Amino acid sequence: MPTDSHTAPATSPTSATNATLAAMQAIVGAGACLSGDADTESYVTDYRRIYRGKAQVVVMPSTTEQVSQVMAWCHAHDVPVVPQGGNTSLMGGAVPDDSGTAVLLSLGRMNRVLAVDTINDTMTVQAGVTLNAARTAAEQEQRLFALRIGSEGSCQIGGNLATNAGGTAVLRYGNMRDLVLGIEAVLPDGRIYSSLRGLRKDNTGYDLKQLFVGSEGTLGIITAAVLKLMPQPRANAVAFVAVQSPEAAVRLLGVAKQHGGQAVTAFELISAPALELVLEYLGDVTSPLPARHDWMVLIELTSGGSDESLNATLMEILEAGLAQELVLDAAVAASLADAQRFWRIREEISDAQTRTGGSIKCDVSVPLSRIAAFIGDASAKVLALEPAARMVIYGHMGDGNVHFNPLRPKDRSAADFLGQWYAPISEAVDTLAHAENGSISAEHGIGVAKRDDLKRYKSPVELELMWQVKRALDPKNLLNPAKMLPRLD
Amino acid sequence: MPTDSHTAPATSPTSATNATLAAMQAIVGAGACLSGDADTESYVTDYRRIYRGKAQVVVMPSTTEQVSQVMAWCHAHDVPVVPQGGNTSLMGGAVPDDSGTAVLLSLGRMNRVLAVDTINDTMTVQAGVTLNAARTAAEQEQRLFALRIGSEGSCQIGGNLATNAGGTAVLRYGNMRDLVLGIEAVLPDGRIYSSLRGLRKDNTGYDLKQLFVGSEGTLGIITAAVLKLMPQPRANAVAFVAVQSPEAAVRLLGVAKQHGGQAVTAFELISAPALELVLEYLGDVTSPLPARHDWMVLIELTSGGSDESLNATLMEILEAGLAQELVLDAAVAASLADAQRFWRIREEISDAQTRTGGSIKCDVSVPLSRIAAFIGDASAKVLALEPAARMVIYGHMGDGNVHFNPLRPKDRSAADFLGQWYAPISEAVDTLAHAENGSISAEHGIGVAKRDDLKRYKSPVELELMWQVKRALDPKNLLNPAKMLPRLD
Repeated sequence: MPTDSHTAPATSPTSATNATLAAMQAIVGAGACLSGDADTESYVTDYRRIYRGKAQVVVMPSTTEQVSQVMAWCHAHDVPVVPQGGNTSLMGGAVPDDSGTAVLLSLGRMNRVLAVDTINDTMTVQAGVTLNAARTAAEQEQRLFALRIGSEGSCQIGGNLATNAGGTAVLRYGNMRDLVLGIEAVLPDGRIYSSLRGLRKDNTGYDLKQLFVGSEGTLGIITAAVLKLMPQPRANAVAFVAVQSPEAAVRLLGVAKQHGGQAVTAFELISAPALELVLEYLGDVTSPLPARHDWMVLIELTSGGSDESLNATLMEILEAGLAQELVLDAAVAASLADAQRFWRIREEISDAQTRTGGSIKCDVSVPLSRIAAFIGDASAKVLALEPAARMVIYGHMGDGNVHFNPLRPKDRSAADFLGQWYAPISEAVDTLAHAENGSISAEHGIGVAKRDDLKRYKSPVELELMWQVKRALDPKNLLNPAKMLPRLD
Repeated sequence: MPTDSHTAPATSPTSATNATLAAMQAIVGAGACLSGDADTESYVTDYRRIYRGKAQVVVMPSTTEQVSQVMAWCHAHDVPVVPQGGNTSLMGGAVPDDSGTAVLLSLGRMNRVLAVDTINDTMTVQAGVTLNAARTAAEQEQRLFALRIGSEGSCQIGGNLATNAGGTAVLRYGNMRDLVLGIEAVLPDGRIYSSLRGLRKDNTGYDLKQLFVGSEGTLGIITAAVLKLMPQPRANAVAFVAVQSPEAAVRLLGVAKQHGGQAVTAFELISAPALELVLEYLGDVTSPLPARHDWMVLIELTSGGSDESLNATLMEILEAGLAQELVLDAAVAASLADAQRFWRIREEISDAQTRTGGSIKCDVSVPLSRIAAFIGDASAKVLALEPAARMVIYGHMGDGNVHFNPLRPKDRSAADFLGQWYAPISEAVDTLAHAENGSISAEHGIGVAKRDDLKRYKSPVELELMWQVKRALDPKNLLNPAKMLPRLD
């Protein structure tokens, strides 16, 4: 019977903590350990201040060997370990529970780019390198590291891997899983697994690195990785397009793929309430289009060819879209500044919601052939419950993934709206997505926020298999316990 | 302590076989069971007739439910099961050992294309669909299923997945692992796992399908899959290019990626002895180039744009290659017939070797930045041992993968050459590849042929982790036993 509770410390919290602190200090040095509520506060609380826990010690190793020693000590002493990268989880996946028994292992000091190989088109980095630093290191060698997500300034490669991060370039380049060639990870008992070899093909046994990608730190602590680099695109073409409906958006995506093939890099849906929220929030920005439209898409093409040729392709797509009555109006970026202005609208939706307060964040995906029906059905369901809800719907339509985030009516408080509707609306939306063969968490993961929901949406066989794998790698259930895997009764 | 031997049958072979046969007949019907040496011969022998075993029964289920029942019965009775697709393994991975205790489960009757979704760009197929049938079903809907390997007429999607097949389009589209979105698999105890949902993003727990991809049938029996489809390329440009050296080929690949980006679909190396072997074997074909050159590459670009534009890109690449003194000469295909003629030379290398006999097949990969050095060092090593060996070196240089296949001198017999050199040359080549951070089996897998070699080339942690996973999913070690995982002492 799996359990998500960990072994209680054998001694009183204080003496246990003193022993743990001394052991951690002996491994990483006193300067790389924090204890006490004040010093650990920013580590045990998530960045949105929704999840708050406690840790015996925050330990900040600077080498893989130190991580190995920390894990070996904690394993021998039955101390749970919570790994943390940039602490940007939306799901409470990177903070400990409030028992105060865990060691929080922060990877932030392991922030070196170890190598960039421009012939193999790979980059070897420590886990604590921020996404932004990784992208910059690639750019300096005229290469692209293709992951593109909003938190790139703080999130770290280790966390990106542990959560299989997605973002706005998945349509062309895939998720984080598709961008990694090798991983170094420390196992729960301190052993070090490594496949840092930079190979695109290696069929010599199980592809063990796959275990760690998307496992939310429950199977091992990723300490380094070899990442795939791409040629830096030389041309870029962006349009902000009003479409007839979500159905029309899906059909326009088909047109775009037909004319643009793999040049289609991003295809992001934006609903009218999402646009309005951003324009209000930013103040200094106006819509690229003169009239109001219910649905818009932001299309980005990139290629290694010329801007002229790529713009011609974009015009072909838009003209075909107009001819098929999918497109109502379109603004094509005439400059890099235009393109950045269009993208800024898309990128600020998340912050605008946070500022406004009171949004119910559903991060769902369904097959593209069902996404228009899903948006229609889910919107009708929500509006039947709360007719004044603002339907903030946006995101990575090209991947079948939308952030479906009903927002409080203007005249209701966040607390009031969420208190009444958070649970019933989340469940209604997730249930509809699941019924369309969809996922209740396309890219945000599970953490603690959706852990128990998995019991409703995963088959018994899937849950059993997850526990079979977890027990095989972490039989003491010490690594990020009570995250992702629901307790089976 | 892991073991790769299975439980001995409790009764005499004959009565055990009778009981197994009766049980299998009850599940799938008498017409879908074969027994006796004559009827099972073609299933228990690999297509090159190198590996030969025995089976109690060959069972050919036609539904996932039947596979589940077969597995449940065998699990209850401790009978090992060897799954088999198109029986095209080069490594003895799909035939049973000679104990005669196994049930051989052939997926060939599960050969239906279940659905093609042209909006989601996915295809759902049963495991026994041949690669050729899958590609044809996609083409009928103007889509591409991108896996391209020599055995496409016989190999099956289930086997392609179980071995993470590679081939000549990996550079652009990835390995089989990159082409699958969902898997249905029957577990060793008969439970059915399914993720046949066609989602490009789903971060709800461990990505369990990854366990089955590349596991060579040791963890579950893949019964169906959802595959990614791509836009069918509209343009195609092919060149047969003489290059200065393997080093020049690698640099030309860099030039090609710089000018062509993701249009670069194939980049295949061909050594002079490989070309000569094919020209001799085919008789009616001549080299696309007038002079003899030590090294050639076959380059293919594809795109959704025009042939003119793509040919212009190819010319840019070749001109830059000439200017940088990488390219010595080049033939550009002026027609589809030309392109097919160029490709035929590449595709016939394998058969030409088989016909000639006496080649030592090493399927290695190294980082691209080391592949030229590897080819030089490994060739020198082999020629120091056997100066008259013909250095048949070819394959997927764009992925860092070469088939490094020293061939017997013309005046020695295959048996004589292999008897003297098979083991020392294989080991020397594999050792050099490993020393360059490479893989001793880039795409062919392990099977029984290289199982025990893994002990030399995998770290103890990797081998332990493989067994941890194997024991978690198949604690009785009944599924394709003694394949891939070396016995640990």
